[in-house]
Amino acid sequence: MPDVAAAPVARLATVGREGRPHVVPICFVLDGERLYTAVDEKPKRTRRLKRLENIEANPRVEVLIDHYEDDWSKLWWVRLRGTARIVEDPRAVDLLVAKYPQYAERRPEGPVIAIDVEERSEWTSSPS
Amino acid sequence: MPDVAAAPVARLATVGREGRPHVVPICFVLDGERLYTAVDEKPKRTRRLKRLENIEANPRVEVLIDHYEDDWSKLWWVRLRGTARIVEDPRAVDLLVAKYPQYAERRPEGPVIAIDVEERSEWTSSPS
Repeated sequence: MPDVAAAPVARLATVGREGRPHVVPICFVLDGERLYTAVDEKPKRTRRLKRLENIEANPRVEVLIDHYEDDWSKLWWVRLRGTARIVEDPRAVDLLVAKYPQYAERRPEGPVIAIDVEERSEWTSSPS
Repeated sequence: MPDVAAAPVARLATVGREGRPHVVPICFVLDGERLYTAVDEKPKRTRRLKRLENIEANPRVEVLIDHYEDDWSKLWWVRLRGTARIVEDPRAVDLLVAKYPQYAERRPEGPVIAIDVEERSEWTSSPS
């Protein structure tokens, strides 16, 4: 069983107004059926981030957590589909700081993307 | 400078008919301004793969190659935007087999997704 919550990195896919996909690596924390990821930039710059523009126009997102290694019998992925909102949420930032010591040194200043997970699918190459 | 061509895994984002993003891990090979990734499944099953359905309806895709490690001064990503087609191309499969010894043992049987890269952006956290 993949330990999704412990994975340090995931990839977040959004869709732009013009129907173009957009994918970025994210640090994240899972809190029950919700996933949080911080936008670690000053508000002024942040507003120009494509992922935020996209979520404002279309909140449907997908998050992929996957594991790769050269032994292809040990691959796995977990895909989370959900609806995203942009929020200011100090508690979510606290959860991120608790997971990532790197954030403890420099707490994220921007808003947080909160994703309500509605569907989870997973796959593993392992025969067992 | 990130060695994108040598990275073993990337993530491919597509968009579904209903405007939903979709993201999958892929093995890939770069051939000049074109990227190939195989769909290693029998044709019958393959036709149901969401990434193929999506590309047929909307060929605009994004591919992310990123590097994560706990030292956040060593992160990087490269993002490729392009247009995808589904092709049968033994030469593309040859290139994939040359990159991945795992494919040499079991050559991919399905079609290949060929992506013409139109835009490349990259980022690194390294100060130099």
